[in-house]
Parts: sequence; C-alpha cells; structure tokens
Amino acid sequence: MFAHNKRLQYTVRVAAPNPGLANLLLEQFGGPQGELAAACRYFTQAVSEDDPGRKDMLFDIATEELSHLEVIGSIVAMLNKGAKGQLAEAVEQEAELYRSLTGGGNDSHITALLYGGGPALTNSAGVPWSAAYIDTIGEPTADLRSNIAAEARAKIVYERLINVTDDPGIREALGFLMTREIAHQKSFEKALHSIQPNFPQGKLPGDPKFTNVYYDLSKGDDARGPWNEGGDWEFVAKPEPAVDGGDGTASVNVPENDLEVLKAMAGRTASDTSVDPTTGADLGSGQATSVK
Amino acid sequence: MFAHNKRLQYTVRVAAPNPGLANLLLEQFGGPQGELAAACRYFTQAVSEDDPGRKDMLFDIATEELSHLEVIGSIVAMLNKGAKGQLAEAVEQEAELYRSLTGGGNDSHITALLYGGGPALTNSAGVPWSAAYIDTIGEPTADLRSNIAAEARAKIVYERLINVTDDPGIREALGFLMTREIAHQKSFEKALHSIQPNFPQGKLPGDPKFTNVYYDLSKGDDARGPWNEGGDWEFVAKPEPAVDGGDGTASVNVPENDLEVLKAMAGRTASDTSVDPTTGADLGSGQATSVK
Amino acid sequence: MFAHNKRLQYTVRVAAPNPGLANLLLEQFGGPQGELAAACRYFTQAVSEDDPGRKDMLFDIATEELSHLEVIGSIVAMLNKGAKGQLAEAVEQEAELYRSLTGGGNDSHITALLYGGGPALTNSAGVPWSAAYIDTIGEPTADLRSNIAAEARAKIVYERLINVTDDPGIREALGFLMTREIAHQKSFEKALHSIQPNFPQGKLPGDPKFTNVYYDLSKGDDARGPWNEGGDWEFVAKPEPAVDGGDGTASVNVPENDLEVLKAMAGRTASDTSVDPTTGADLGSGQATSVK
Amino acid sequence: MFAHNKRLQYTVRVAAPNPGLANLLLEQFGGPQGELAAACRYFTQAVSEDDPGRKDMLFDIATEELSHLEVIGSIVAMLNKGAKGQLAEAVEQEAELYRSLTGGGNDSHITALLYGGGPALTNSAGVPWSAAYIDTIGEPTADLRSNIAAEARAKIVYERLINVTDDPGIREALGFLMTREIAHQKSFEKALHSIQPNFPQGKLPGDPKFTNVYYDLSKGDDARGPWNEGGDWEFVAKPEPAVDGGDGTASVNVPENDLEVLKAMAGRTASDTSVDPTTGADLGSGQATSVK
Amino acid sequence: MFAHNKRLQYTVRVAAPNPGLANLLLEQFGGPQGELAAACRYFTQAVSEDDPGRKDMLFDIATEELSHLEVIGSIVAMLNKGAKGQLAEAVEQEAELYRSLTGGGNDSHITALLYGGGPALTNSAGVPWSAAYIDTIGEPTADLRSNIAAEARAKIVYERLINVTDDPGIREALGFLMTREIAHQKSFEKALHSIQPNFPQGKLPGDPKFTNVYYDLSKGDDARGPWNEGGDWEFVAKPEPAVDGGDGTASVNVPENDLEVLKAMAGRTASDTSVDPTTGADLGSGQATSVK
Amino acid sequence: MFAHNKRLQYTVRVAAPNPGLANLLLEQFGGPQGELAAACRYFTQAVSEDDPGRKDMLFDIATEELSHLEVIGSIVAMLNKGAKGQLAEAVEQEAELYRSLTGGGNDSHITALLYGGGPALTNSAGVPWSAAYIDTIGEPTADLRSNIAAEARAKIVYERLINVTDDPGIREALGFLMTREIAHQKSFEKALHSIQPNFPQGKLPGDPKFTNVYYDLSKGDDARGPWNEGGDWEFVAKPEPAVDGGDGTASVNVPENDLEVLKAMAGRTASDTSVDPTTGADLGSGQATSVK
Repeated sequence: MFAHNKRLQYTVRVAAPNPGLANLLLEQFGGPQGELAAACRYFTQAVSEDDPGRKDMLFDIATEELSHLEVIGSIVAMLNKGAKGQLAEAVEQEAELYRSLTGGGNDSHITALLYGGGPALTNSAGVPWSAAYIDTIGEPTADLRSNIAAEARAKIVYERLINVTDDPGIREALGFLMTREIAHQKSFEKALHSIQPNFPQGKLPGDPKFTNVYYDLSKGDDARGPWNEGGDWEFVAKPEPAVDGGDGTASVNVPENDLEVLKAMAGRTASDTSVDPTTGADLGSGQATSVK
Repeated sequence: MFAHNKRLQYTVRVAAPNPGLANLLLEQFGGPQGELAAACRYFTQAVSEDDPGRKDMLFDIATEELSHLEVIGSIVAMLNKGAKGQLAEAVEQEAELYRSLTGGGNDSHITALLYGGGPALTNSAGVPWSAAYIDTIGEPTADLRSNIAAEARAKIVYERLINVTDDPGIREALGFLMTREIAHQKSFEKALHSIQPNFPQGKLPGDPKFTNVYYDLSKGDDARGPWNEGGDWEFVAKPEPAVDGGDGTASVNVPENDLEVLKAMAGRTASDTSVDPTTGADLGSGQATSVK
Repeated sequence: MFAHNKRLQYTVRVAAPNPGLANLLLEQFGGPQGELAAACRYFTQAVSEDDPGRKDMLFDIATEELSHLEVIGSIVAMLNKGAKGQLAEAVEQEAELYRSLTGGGNDSHITALLYGGGPALTNSAGVPWSAAYIDTIGEPTADLRSNIAAEARAKIVYERLINVTDDPGIREALGFLMTREIAHQKSFEKALHSIQPNFPQGKLPGDPKFTNVYYDLSKGDDARGPWNEGGDWEFVAKPEPAVDGGDGTASVNVPENDLEVLKAMAGRTASDTSVDPTTGADLGSGQATSVK
Repeated sequence: MFAHNKRLQYTVRVAAPNPGLANLLLEQFGGPQGELAAACRYFTQAVSEDDPGRKDMLFDIATEELSHLEVIGSIVAMLNKGAKGQLAEAVEQEAELYRSLTGGGNDSHITALLYGGGPALTNSAGVPWSAAYIDTIGEPTADLRSNIAAEARAKIVYERLINVTDDPGIREALGFLMTREIAHQKSFEKALHSIQPNFPQGKLPGDPKFTNVYYDLSKGDDARGPWNEGGDWEFVAKPEPAVDGGDGTASVNVPENDLEVLKAMAGRTASDTSVDPTTGADLGSGQATSVK
Repeated sequence: MFAHNKRLQYTVRVAAPNPGLANLLLEQFGGPQGELAAACRYFTQAVSEDDPGRKDMLFDIATEELSHLEVIGSIVAMLNKGAKGQLAEAVEQEAELYRSLTGGGNDSHITALLYGGGPALTNSAGVPWSAAYIDTIGEPTADLRSNIAAEARAKIVYERLINVTDDPGIREALGFLMTREIAHQKSFEKALHSIQPNFPQGKLPGDPKFTNVYYDLSKGDDARGPWNEGGDWEFVAKPEPAVDGGDGTASVNVPENDLEVLKAMAGRTASDTSVDPTTGADLGSGQATSVK
Repeated sequence: MFAHNKRLQYTVRVAAPNPGLANLLLEQFGGPQGELAAACRYFTQAVSEDDPGRKDMLFDIATEELSHLEVIGSIVAMLNKGAKGQLAEAVEQEAELYRSLTGGGNDSHITALLYGGGPALTNSAGVPWSAAYIDTIGEPTADLRSNIAAEARAKIVYERLINVTDDPGIREALGFLMTREIAHQKSFEKALHSIQPNFPQGKLPGDPKFTNVYYDLSKGDDARGPWNEGGDWEFVAKPEPAVDGGDGTASVNVPENDLEVLKAMAGRTASDTSVDPTTGADLGSGQATSVK
C-alpha cells in the first residue's frame, strides 16, 4: 500500500515561468524515458517478483520513481503557472495569447490548449505516454538488463535537459534526478550479477554451431574489433544462404484437400506475363486512348 | 544499399499448417521483441553512427535481423498456407470456416480476416508494430546497453516459443534465431566495453551527495543485498522529504501581472467548504428530492 | 513524496491459478477504466491544483488508486503463478503448453508469451495502456465531472468482473475495489458542487440564442422527454441550415497573389465531365481492350 | 440512414488565411475533446440503445456533432486555403515556403507536408485521432455521466480557442459550437436523472463497510471539506494495511506439480546476497580490471 | 449539415445472437478497412475539395458510408443482444458467464467486459480505431487512387466475412455493403480519369534518367514480366551503388566551431579495438571472476 | 537473405546542417508515406506471395525501398550533425542551446532531446511509426491497388519536400527518390493488369441490383459527371431507407430466457419522461437550491 507526503523528495525552486521549457521537460514526465515509465516498469516487476531481495529493491526504486514523477511534474506546473491563469481568465487580448501560444517555438501550445497548463502524460511532442514503452518480459536476468539500459537512457535525457536550462533551481533539481538514475543503475547491476549464471538468459543453451559466429553482411569500410575478432569468434566473411546447409527455401506439407484450393487461388490470381497490358498509369499519362 | 537473395538465411521446414501457432509466432515478427524492432533499432543507429567500427557492426547485425525477419515471416506464411486458400476460395462451407477462425483459441482470426493469412506486422494479440518499441537515444554507451537488453529479451521470447512447439523443423529454425541473439548480445557487450569509461553514461558526473545513496522507501519484508549494502552504499532507512534539506515545496516567481490573473482564477474556482452541497449523486440515490 | 508498505490495502486470497481469468482482470490493471488510469488522472490533477482542499483530496485518492493497482496486479500475479513457472522451466511438454496457451479462449497467450505471466499494463485484449485514456484538461469544474464519470465506469467494469468470477477471495477483493469507486465518486461530487457556480464550466457564457435549443435532427420514432421539452427548451422540429440565418457557406478572403496560385491548381486538377473516360476498373473487368 | 445538405449548420466567414490558427483549431476536429469524438461517442451509444427516448436523443445529438465536425473542418480548410495552393503549385520559392512552414511556431508544418492543407483527423500536435478517446461502456447511467463530462471538456477547449482568436467570424462560429455543448450537456443531465435511481450505477450495491470511508493517505497541508467530512463520511486519519483486517499478503493455492516447477525457477534465478559481484558498471567505471 | 432517418439504409434481420460473430464483424465497424475509416476518409476530402463535381461525389459517398456504419453497427448490436443483458443483469451464474466470455474462441470478451456488448470502434482484435488508417494527403490524383484501393480492400474483407457466416439475413446485408464498395470504386475510377493527365501525380516530372529503370535487387528465382520488361523499361541486372555515378557516401559541410565539438564527442566515445574487454556477459557466464 | 553495401544507392551531398529541415524530412523516414512503410509493405507481401513473378518484383522493390530508407536517413543524419555534437558535448551555453532547440519553429526539439540528433522512426510531428499505416490484406488485386496508391502519395510528399528545400544536393537526392516512386508505380500497374480479370477484386460478384446505383445523398450544388451519369449508372435522386424494400429496422430472434433478462435491464434503466428532474447542471447553475 502506498502513502504520500505532500513535501517533495527534492525542493523545487523555479526562477520564472517558461512554458517552452515546461514543454521540453515533459520528456521526463510522460516521455518514453521518463519517470512514469520508470515507475511502471519497476512496480509491475515488483508485483510479480518472488525473490524477496529483488522484490524489495524493485518496490523501493518504484516508489522513488513515483516521487521523481512528482518532482518533475511540479517543475512543469511551476513553469506553466502564468500561462495557466492567462488562458483561463484573460478574454480581452486574443492576439497576444495567440502569439504566446505559437511563439514558443515548440509544442507548448498543446499543453496550454488541451491540458490547460497542467503537466500532461505526453512527451515533448505531445504524444501520449504508452505502455508500449515498457519492455518487461518477466524473466529477471532479462528484465534487470532492461532496467540497466533504461536508467542509462534516462540519465542521458536528464543531461540534455540540464544542458538547455540556465535556471539554477531547475538545474539543481534535474541534477538530483539525474544522479539518482546513476544510483539505481548501480543497484540493478548488482542485482543482475548476484544471479549466477545470468548469461545466456533463460534455460535453453544456444546452438554451439552459431553462438560464436559473426556474419559480415555489410560490405565496405569493414572494421574489426573485439565484437567480431579475438576470443572464440568465428568470422564469416562471405555469408551465403542457407547457413544450415539446406537450400534456403521454405516448405510446408499441405493437406491434400487444401492443395486443390491453393491451385484454384493460384489460377485465379495468376499473372499473364505474355502481354503488356494497358494500365491506369497509361490512361493517366496520355499513353493510351482514354475515350471509349 | 541493400541486396537480397531469395534463399533464406536458414531453411524452413514446416510439418503442417497451424494458424494458431502462426499467430503466436507473430510475436517475433511484428511484436515488441521481434525482428523488425531489432532491425530498425540497429539500422537507425548505424545510419547516424560516426565511429567506423560500431557503424560496421551495427550494419552487419541490422542486415542479419532483416534476414531473420524473413525467416520468421516465412514460417508464419507456411503455417497459414491452408487457411489463406480456404478463406480466399471456399464459399460453400461457412460454418466450418467460422469454426476454424474462432476455434484456434487465440487471435489467429485477425490474421485471417484482416490480413488474409499473410504475416502481419502485429504482435500475437493483433496490436500493430510501433516505433515506440525502439528506445535508441543517440548516445552509444546508452544505446549499446539498450541493445544488450533487447537481445536478452528476444532470446527469452524465442525460448518460450520453442517451448510451445513440437514441430521439429520449426524448433530447429527458432533455435537458430535464438542462438543468434546470444551471439549479437556478445558483440554488443564487447562494443560497449571497448568504450572506456562507459559509466556513468554521458559527460555530466552525478552529484556525489546522492550517487551512492539507497532510499528504503518500501517497508515490510525488507532485504539487504549487494544492491544496497557493502561497497560505498549509504543506506537511508527512513527517507524524509526533502532530501536536499529544503522544505520540499515547489515555488516559482510569477510576474506581477500574472498574480492578478491567478488570484481571479483562484476566486472563481474556489471550493466553499462551509456547506455540504447537494450533488448529482444525491439526486441519483434518492437522498435529495428530484422534482423541482 | 511517496512511501510504500508491502502489505496490501486489501488481503488477496486466490483459490487456484487461472490464466484466463487473469487476462480478463487486466482490464482493471492496464485497461482504459483501470487503476493506472485512475491513479494517473488524479495524480496529475493534484500536481497542478492550487486549491488546497482539492489538492489534498486528489493526492489522497491518487495514492489509494496506486494501492488498488497493487491489489489488482497481485491478483493477476497469483492467477498466473502456475503458468509463469511452466513457461519458464518446462521444456519437455510442448504440446500441452501449446494447448494451455491457446485453449483459454481469450488473450491470455499474450500475457504468457510476451510478459512471462507478469501483470502487464495492457487491457484484456493485449492493447498497451495509453495516456490517451486520460481526459484531464486543467479546469476543475470539467475535470471533476470527468472524474465522476471515470469512477462510474470503473464501478461497472468491476461489477462485470465480479459477475464472471466464482472464486470467493477474488470476489471479495473486487467488491472492495468496486465499493471504493463509489466512495470516490461521492467525494468528487461533493468537491464539484462546493464550487459555485459550476455550470456552464469556464468563464464565457453561452450565446442565449442557442443555449436552450434542441434540434430534432434524427427522424422516425421521435420521442420527447425532459431533455428536449419542458423547462426552457425550444424544440426545433425541422432544423435547416444555416441556423445563424446566413447562407451556410464557408468563405475566406484570400490574398491576391494566392488567388493566382489557387486558380492554377484548380485548372491543373479540374475534372472534365464531358467525357466518359476509360478507367483501371474498365481495364480490369474486360470492358476495355487491355492490349496496346 | 444519413442525409447531407451542403449548406453548413452555421455560416463560416474567415477574415484571412492563417495556417497556425488552423493547426490550433484541429484540436476540435481530430483532438480528444473534438467533434469526431463527440459524434462517434453518441452514435455508437445510439446504435445499441434500446430505450426509445435515449436512442432518439443520442441520434439527434450525434447528427448535430457530425454537422459541427463539418463546421470546424470548413474553418480549418478556409484558414489553410492559401497554404494549400502554395505548396501544390509554387516551385520557385523554396526558402520562403520553408520559412512559412517552420515559422508558424506550432505544428502547422505537418498539416501542410503530410495532409496538403486539408483538415486532418489529428489534434494540434499532429497525433492521429484514436478511438481510445471514447469511454463508452454500454451502461446508460455511466455513459450519460461520461457524456456530461465530455461536453464540459469540449466547452472549455472552445473557450480557450476563442480566447486566442481575434477573427470575428471565427469567434462567432466557435461561440455557436461552444454554446451547443452547453445545450447538449443539459440534455444529458436531464436524461441521466430521468433514470431513478442512477447512483450507484449498475446493480451491485457497494459494501457498506467501505462506501462512506475516506482514507487520508496524503499527509501535510491536509484539508477537510464536504468530500471527506459531514454527512455519513467516516474519516480514517491513519489508514493501515490491510483494511479488511487480514495480513495484507497475496496468496494462491498452487497445484502440487506446479510447486516443483516454481521451486526450480526460484532456484535458477535466486540472488546470492553473500557476495558483492563485479558488474558491468564496475567494468565501465574503472572500478574493475577490464582486460582479461 | 447532416440529417438522420432512424430507418436503416438496408434492413437487418439476424437469426440469433452470436457474440463471436459480432466480434468478427467489428472488423468493418472499427477496423482499418471498415466503414468509419471510409466515412472519415471521404468526408475530410470533401470538406477541403474545391472542385464542385468531386466535392459533391465525396459528400454523397461519405454520407452513404456513415449509413453503412450504422448498418454494420446494428448487426453487431443484434448479435450481442443476449450477451448485453446477461452481463448487466445476471449475478448468480458466474461460471457460466465466464465460459461464455472465454469460450467464443476470439476476442468477444473485450466487447462484453469493456463495452458492455455495444458496438465498439475497435477491430476484431480489440485495437481502437486510429486515424492513422486514413491516408488522405490532399492531392486529388493521389487521394482518388487511395480511395480506389480502399474500396478494393473493403470489398475483400466483406467477402471474407460473408464466407464465415451462414445467417441468411446477415449474408444479405453484408452482400449489399460489399456491392456498394464496388459501385464506389467505379465512381472513384471515373473521377480519377476525368482529370487528365493524372500520372505522374503532382507537378514535378520525374528525372528521365530513372523513370523507366528497374533494379534487379533480389536474386534467385528471377522472373520477367511487363513490370520490368517490354515498353520502355531499362532492366539493370546488377545494380551497383551509387547509381548517380558518385561514390555513394553521405557528406555535409559542418561549420568550423562544430567540428571541434564533433571531434570531442568522437574522442569521448571512441572504441578501443586493441583490447578484448571483459564484459557483463563474461561476468554472467562464468568466463570472468565475479568477486572483487 | 539480405546483404548490405555501405555505399548508398544515391550519393548524399548536404550543403550545411539544418535541424529544422531534418525534422521535415523525417516525414519520408518514419512517416506514414515514408520509406519504412514502403519497405515493410512490399516485404511482407513478398514473403507470402506464391506467384513467382510478383514475388520477385515485390522483393526487388522492397529491397530498393530499404536502400531509400538509408538514403533519406543519411540526409537527416547529415543535417543534424552539428546539433548532435552540441547537445552531447557543450555544457556551458544553455541559453543558446535552448534557443536553437526551440527556435526551429517545428518539432526538431524532439529529435534532439529524445533521439540525440539521430534519425528517428517518427514523422515530422514526432509521432512514432506504426504498422497501422500498412494496408496490405493478402489479396493481390487489392494489394497492388494499395501499392499504386502508396507510390502516388509518396511521390507527392517528396514533391512537397523538394519545394521547401533550396539545398541543391538534397533536392537532387530527393528528386531521385521521387522518381523511383514513379517507376515503382508503373511496375505495380503492370502487375495489376497482368491479372485478368482484376475487377471486382476477389471471387464474389456484386449484387446486380446495387452495383451500378449512385445514391445522391448530399444535397445542394449537386453535380453530374462520369462517376454518376452515363454508362450503366442508375442515379437515385431521392434515396429512401430501406433500399431493399424492407422497413429499415434491425431485428434479432432472442432466446426466450434472454428476453426476461432484457426486460429486467430495460426496466432498471428506463427513463421516466413524466417528470422534469433536477440535475447536476441545475445544482451548478443556481437553478436549484444547493444546500440540503
């Protein structure tokens, strides 16, 4: 069960309203690498996790991400404070409101018109948050790797947002949020490697014929590195189909009665390659007479 | 530039049509952990990558994933071979067709009705593939971690699909595809760690006050492990807002003229807590007279 | 800031695993009327609300909805407990696993294959949760009405789920969750009507010429009721365009230089109605000679 | 069956083209609170409604909303009239076209490039309209509340659009559309309350132990009001799990043979908390030797 | 402006309720090739069309498609008539309701649970309708081709639905709807070819060096036909990059000050290919010591 | 199986970085009419096609579209080259970065912040690519028409992009890509008409009573043309329901036991039209006393 304290995890001090910046910050509120995604990711993993240590860690971090969602949402709300009032109350200055809505140079208009200045669960382009952003699959050795990667991405997006802000209070709060992603990433790394072995993930081993093979399928400016040479890598310079030694075709044993049907379909839709038919494009480009 | 050879990377031998299984396999064709997602992920990274080694590797693997997409799509096409013909040609046996469409116990009906038995870029629930599945952000130390996690997930989904199939030809082909995810994962790991340092990602360091802190925000059945004890972890057993030492509120300096507007809005929408108003729920539950 | 207690708000006692039922219950986990939608709806309103009473209420209820999300997710996890293990560990009984995945008669296969039996933020058809479900617009007199309606819908979906379950522990927990929607709906009603006036919403009054007019635009089986007769309703039996008394056309003053361009476009794309052109359909239906 | 009259329900007089404003108005064409959503919402309810009075009302209003969709679409078309021609015909002034496409300060570029200046079924951020916006669930006492809320939201969005426009013809037409939302809202209110009782919705009563309880889950700046005090409210100041008196855990009776499997899975994925494993983060941050 | 007559364009006589069939029919209600898509497609084109003949035709057909939407929705409502009542009223027979919801073998459960048996704007897999299905771009010679193709697809989906139905009343109504797609397709063909020339679409001619070239990029089982031989086709058997005669690279002139920055970025993220780094996969597979 | 050559199909020479233009070009990278959609469309058709000629053609063109995707992606990468570096490395000039992110007048900010300057699979409004854009249904006579229309649309979008660019290298490359759409369209036209007959698509003929009927459903400014007069058109000037001669109602034979249930539901939700109930709107507008 959750509880809430109206004091934020980190104090938010915004120098002045700025709807354009508010819109950019939505990236970490309702964007793919944002805090709702993080909270949902860890919360759903926690609910179905059976290992007590990982379950505890996932709930701890999910709860913190919810608290981060509140911090970033509060910054957005502060940055939109003026715009919210103007839109709701001012009815005498349309031209100016229009300019402020369309002059921000980004998508802040959607926040204003559709969401009234409130923090919306969209990214900075106005795309609604989607659970398609969450890649949890229910196997801890895979999910922990997904979590590590998610924290890495969130860290970078925070860094970019810090780079476009000169409001010291916002930079400080974003710096805190960015730092916590680093800490979470470290926890997930430790949790991953306390499961041994954790690679390859799952139970089925790979087929040894193909586990250490590297197919050089893109030609020109080829490069070698530890990802395709050294160790136990087998580098296949000219990969040819089919690598299993078969003929590379696809086949299926179709029941007798279906064969008839398939033959009928093939006949009905057969291409007659012996004629050069007049086409709609011919009709439209003056290469055929168009009046019957 | 791409070229294509009509022979598949791996020979596909399907024992018998099975639209229900075809539908499950769509998970790796148009699903979030499937081959289109993999190919798009690495291809878009390759296009914008400047490092020649990583660019080469990304194009090599992207090209292989496209070839895998073709293999899994070919299996789906073979499994649907009979259904495709029946739906297109048979017009005399509606009841039986209805049963075959709705008796598969999963979503194969959508493949049949909407896609005519062809492999569709949806997952096994019929949800269209979305680029929201791709989490590339344009920073190699983050993207390589995302790639490692993506391969880990794909490996597991293949393992699950193998577990529900007893067609030996399909199992063999799926085994090949699963194995290649392992190989790709190894390549991405090597590529990640040939960039040093690669943690934390990006340029901005974390704030040392918060980098090694673990907040114990979920109570009950608490557990300790290397993710929150040992090393340089500082374990905060009772986290209190605000961790920066401030009062945990959010504030913004609003321009003078906006203050008036905000006050007007507050007045207009103020809650009067001194009365217990009759409500629509009262009207609807017989707790208020409902005839004027 | 949020905190978490690993004890649930309501104790969950599931009689036996049932992946098919688990899938149906996802409707209230990641579906449009489910608990994530509720929690996000009230949380985002709370963050931008300035009125202290409403802010407090919105945070109280948002926090409870998060706790409900945990309850429903825990039921789903219990119902999938067996399936999760079977899929992860059993590699010898493919045919049976296939039957259990496709025999449930609904979309439980997607939960298993893609999410490994964990509670996924999708509805019961496998559609990922979307913030498009949230209709908050940042004006309390509208948002409270939206909240009232949302609780009404959630109450009904819980009622339907109770109607398809005979597991007493699940029925009891769902009954609790359903009841809480009723309580929340009552709170939102009270909060709405403590703002006076709250209708029409916003500042701009309606145009009195059209506020009380009812246009009878659908003919046949016409019916009258308090929604179109009595009170101050003006019933327009034969609505004709344009109701403003104008000619019902759309016009715009286009700058001189654009007129030239528009004339050029009109000329280029003009339809010549004086001929009966041969078409691609003619070519395809044997009504025109098809060999040049 | 529908019929159409090419005269609009309300005459549209646009002073001058303005693609930026056209883009903002898309909010009520293809946005979540727009006229397509309204028309689809009431039309689908009408089709399945059995009560003759409500069915008539729903068809009346659905038909009017389609007519509104035409009005708002016609305004958008007029505002884009110049842009449409320029893009289609002018091939000599690329720099100017580029400026006009990117200088509007909002998303009008997408309307131009992708839709050629026609009214597109997207919101003002370019997000395609989605039936996920429609919250109809097929129970009239819930759906009417949803309709009331939908009209309330649409009224506000029209008010905001009026506030950013100074073209008198557009303001007049938007004023008409806004007013009609008020009239529709009144009809839906009357229809709701002519069903008695209508609260709680549906057949199942709430559990009296929890119907009048208010849980104070968010602490700090607590406030009281008619939503949590007075009447029959029971205010729980310190809610503790589990409110049913149980232990707040989740349990399920797992069949014997599944227990074995679950134990195997637990063993395979167990965390070893006795070691502090080296991790990928250690490798990447120089805290471990990285050459084998 | 629209008007409505409660009599359907085509009389609907359903032999018996069948929620499973209702679900399949949703394909033409809220599916990609369904009637809402058709109506929206032609309506939005009509609104922005300036040519009076095409505008009239588009409104005529859009209005008919709305009437078709009503016919197909009414069939769905009839097929769900029993289910709707059972779910709303029956509270004593949970096991049976569960069986009926999950025994249909397709996604009818979502219609019941979430939409209460009403016709929902989803396809037969439960995916909400999206304006992404509409491909109108605002150029009549392209849009008419899109309309022709859309009618062709709708005709086929109706044919498939007829093939799985043996209810004579439904077959008759679907036969009517299918036939009308044929008639509309013919109208759009005539409208397309009364614009001359209509190919290539738009104003810019193709580059004659590449207009008639066919690149044979897929090898194996090559075939020739009128699409790549005869006429003015130039068949390039071995296409090599770059076809413009250049070196096939991508280049850009980067400003001086950016070069410094790019060099810094390259340095920071450079791969060191001279070492074979230990990786997380090594740590996880026992190929590296994992205890510090 | 695919192979890749790192030389592009067409050499890309970009004069100078321009993130705003890069953003517009995304329309043909990850937009609905773009190259990924084209490649996926033809590739999936190729995989399930049985006719050797069409299969070969579809693979040839799919492979070329992948190569086009690479060309357009490379242009985007070049145009973003400077922005990518600035965002990743520059940490001292926040105000300037903010201006460059928000001053572009379109959605380039999302490319920068979320994707780090890499080419993302979104359209120019930031909407992620969706397989909902693909309208393949698995019947060649329909799919070829869809392909023809898709090429027509892509040609126009390229023309528009050329019209807003004055960079000669980009114009040349876009001109090549536009031209290839023309060539592909011609191939698909030839392939369509080498199947005879190809209209109407599929096997079921239309009902001759309705195949040649045109319903004049939109009144005012009526126009005649070959799409509704001449040939075998039957023009119905006053279409009346129901066109089958029936009464235009919808009916279903409901089983006896369901009738009871439906009657109960009707009773429970009946509207009482004999009273004028007080409503929430009355309570909110001061038309009813609001204190109990």
